[in-house]
Amino acid sequence: MSSPAPAPPSVSSAPNAPRSLWTRKHLLGLEDLSRDEILAILDTARAFDEISDRERKKVPALQGKIVFNLFFENSTRTRTSFSLAAKRLSADVQDFSASTSSLSKGESFIDTAKNLEAMGADILVVRHSTPGTPHLLARHVTCSIVNAGDGAHEHPTQALLDLMTIRKHKGRVEGLTVGLVGDIAHSRVARSNIWGLQKLNAKVILCGPPTLVPSAFESLGCEVAHHLDPILPRLDVVNVLRIQFERDQRSVFPSVSEYFRLYGMTRERLARARPDLLLLAPGPINRGVELTPEVADGPHSAILDQVTNGLAVRMAVLYLLSGRAPV
Amino acid sequence: MSSPAPAPPSVSSAPNAPRSLWTRKHLLGLEDLSRDEILAILDTARAFDEISDRERKKVPALQGKIVFNLFFENSTRTRTSFSLAAKRLSADVQDFSASTSSLSKGESFIDTAKNLEAMGADILVVRHSTPGTPHLLARHVTCSIVNAGDGAHEHPTQALLDLMTIRKHKGRVEGLTVGLVGDIAHSRVARSNIWGLQKLNAKVILCGPPTLVPSAFESLGCEVAHHLDPILPRLDVVNVLRIQFERDQRSVFPSVSEYFRLYGMTRERLARARPDLLLLAPGPINRGVELTPEVADGPHSAILDQVTNGLAVRMAVLYLLSGRAPV
Amino acid sequence: MSSPAPAPPSVSSAPNAPRSLWTRKHLLGLEDLSRDEILAILDTARAFDEISDRERKKVPALQGKIVFNLFFENSTRTRTSFSLAAKRLSADVQDFSASTSSLSKGESFIDTAKNLEAMGADILVVRHSTPGTPHLLARHVTCSIVNAGDGAHEHPTQALLDLMTIRKHKGRVEGLTVGLVGDIAHSRVARSNIWGLQKLNAKVILCGPPTLVPSAFESLGCEVAHHLDPILPRLDVVNVLRIQFERDQRSVFPSVSEYFRLYGMTRERLARARPDLLLLAPGPINRGVELTPEVADGPHSAILDQVTNGLAVRMAVLYLLSGRAPV
Repeated sequence: MSSPAPAPPSVSSAPNAPRSLWTRKHLLGLEDLSRDEILAILDTARAFDEISDRERKKVPALQGKIVFNLFFENSTRTRTSFSLAAKRLSADVQDFSASTSSLSKGESFIDTAKNLEAMGADILVVRHSTPGTPHLLARHVTCSIVNAGDGAHEHPTQALLDLMTIRKHKGRVEGLTVGLVGDIAHSRVARSNIWGLQKLNAKVILCGPPTLVPSAFESLGCEVAHHLDPILPRLDVVNVLRIQFERDQRSVFPSVSEYFRLYGMTRERLARARPDLLLLAPGPINRGVELTPEVADGPHSAILDQVTNGLAVRMAVLYLLSGRAPV
Repeated sequence: MSSPAPAPPSVSSAPNAPRSLWTRKHLLGLEDLSRDEILAILDTARAFDEISDRERKKVPALQGKIVFNLFFENSTRTRTSFSLAAKRLSADVQDFSASTSSLSKGESFIDTAKNLEAMGADILVVRHSTPGTPHLLARHVTCSIVNAGDGAHEHPTQALLDLMTIRKHKGRVEGLTVGLVGDIAHSRVARSNIWGLQKLNAKVILCGPPTLVPSAFESLGCEVAHHLDPILPRLDVVNVLRIQFERDQRSVFPSVSEYFRLYGMTRERLARARPDLLLLAPGPINRGVELTPEVADGPHSAILDQVTNGLAVRMAVLYLLSGRAPV
Repeated sequence: MSSPAPAPPSVSSAPNAPRSLWTRKHLLGLEDLSRDEILAILDTARAFDEISDRERKKVPALQGKIVFNLFFENSTRTRTSFSLAAKRLSADVQDFSASTSSLSKGESFIDTAKNLEAMGADILVVRHSTPGTPHLLARHVTCSIVNAGDGAHEHPTQALLDLMTIRKHKGRVEGLTVGLVGDIAHSRVARSNIWGLQKLNAKVILCGPPTLVPSAFESLGCEVAHHLDPILPRLDVVNVLRIQFERDQRSVFPSVSEYFRLYGMTRERLARARPDLLLLAPGPINRGVELTPEVADGPHSAILDQVTNGLAVRMAVLYLLSGRAPV
């Protein structure tokens, strides 16, 4: 767009994901995106991932741009990942947390967002406990919105980093069988993964107790299983969702030891899986609940690689939304 | 001063506000400033405002300078505006909030300020609930102090952004009649506006219930009115101050509905104002208390433009205080 | 190491502290370091101190590097000093505080550190109330760890800035007699000072009530004294440790007035010290407890100079650990 806007270092121009395809202003969820749009992000992320190995990792792509983290729910991890992604692109980053903000003085969050835009915000990264909040803001501001998690609805960059990790380790997503294990009902990570995986033609199996995995999810095109052991040998990838102890789930969740016995990832259980099973888990993990420490740190696990890929995916998203993409 | 210090992009050298006029080290309030000094800030702010439309908005003016936000009262909005202003000037910005600081270990805030100076602070942006705190610090440190609000005393950058907004929309301040409506008695915004407007030769009318607008304010050269409707048709500009619900004002404030009936800005009320009335309101606004949503978002309102101008005014202030002004 | 890595501006190549000597990945404490390693840091710090007087203070040495402040205890002052040091070296800095982090979701701090490393952290600056935490992390991550205070164990950069201040004012450390006064038993500052001073061949006298200065410290090679007045005339340097009122020490500490009478630094007491006595105090100071305001601000005091030297020492440490040192 502007003459000095540099091209990303080595964006592959794969024929199935031409970079010129990206025209969206916002990233609100994976449900909205086409297969080619998802691949455009993943290809751009791969290019950014390659420069992370360089001695000098910063690129001037977003110099002079302002990225706001507008988080109405605590999330140091995701917020930090977005901050580092923005800094690595040379953007200015500003955190705006709800607890200390004007919201406590009675201002609506639409007014808050409009104010940040009036201060020059180019991109608002938004997390909120109410599903649809980023979509609402997108209708009221002219800057870009990135959904960093809205209630139990979507968390698109988490699913994108899961997809990127699968691609890196398996070479592809298409044709794979991916299990999502745990609290599907309350998980935005699960929803975004379901959309992303199916658009890239993977088969999705949801697994967990009936209270956490209602059979209604079959209508999304997924297989639903309430026992892990019978389906485990069929999986190329298992994504172990975390039990959210910080939210009260007593009514849907009998006991940790019962859960662990049925769904916990142990070395014994993994011995019955495919030797090349790829194990993913969106952090922070509860060692000894969803999985044992030896599994978390074991050969199947790509947990820390997911964190690294999260940085690249978020750089790609900020970069594409900034409108500084070369045509 | 130093040879590589760049001139601001297009500072107008208006004869009534020569840039070489600025010699102050601190910005403590508008009461201290001359008309020409206020105009020097506003002219510099206009120059910075113009570069905000560029694709690349950063200027290297304050590279290597350290700006501290030393806030002893919550204010995400003002703090964020100062942070962005400093970053856009390429300064390093550091927040220092009282709650997590050494102050809880028994250190005085003068010691805190001296410590920040010893760490290399060039400018301290200070907010405190006690009037005169920035003035006290200015006597104990050798770096620059910017008053970002001291109790009910002054909030100079807020008044400067109000003046800048009036200038932008009206072409001048001189000769205009400006109404300040609401809680004048407890408002630092009101005090700074009174000084600034009068120095630029505007007429000021203060309006609100007698408990919030004591007639003692007449001694400052203002007109005092307790009813809005009779004075509204005379106003070129109305500045709607916010009711500070986060402070307990039960004794001076009968009820929200009573206040709204007498002083709330509604479409019906505005129909009796001048067609070109400019409406200002320092955020965060309480929709439905000081003004209706349709007025806040209506054609008279310059509320979001004020936020944008706040960034330019703060860039101008930091720039002028940095001593890097060209002579 | 990498070709564009600039040399620090004027690192003295003192024969007793060749810069090529630095090979460590972590700075965990002064107990581990050799005399020459300590001198290497101090010489590098002196070089960085010199550029702080320049108009443009930033150096590009750590451009593209990511420094995390991982603080599990409140410390605005030390955290801020590290942040500014990192920014002045052009690194990207990210704060990660425990209270808002994933730790409250049940994640272990080793997992937290590994996650930050996976996000690209080059250096983790760690403060924790448990002694040995930085050492534990150093065994689990591949990035560099700086101990910014671990319980009552060590606080190496504080002792390094004390040593730097002594060198600046006295020209040397060797052969000096240095008194540490106050709560030695619970002080990490005292422990790091003892190691650093003795390695540089200073004599150390510990002074305070028996509950705060157990004679067991004699086994570290220090002299122990329970009364200040007899030893004061022998001291070249006195380092006045702070009484940590924020921790409950009622059992070991009779009363403030009693403490002040025996150990408080007053003008009267200093009249019996050497005329060139150098007075240090790690902030934040309690005026009227460990020392009177007139002593804190008097001619013996180098308290604010310590703060300035802290920035230089931390720049030196981050620089040396970054691996970008010229060989």
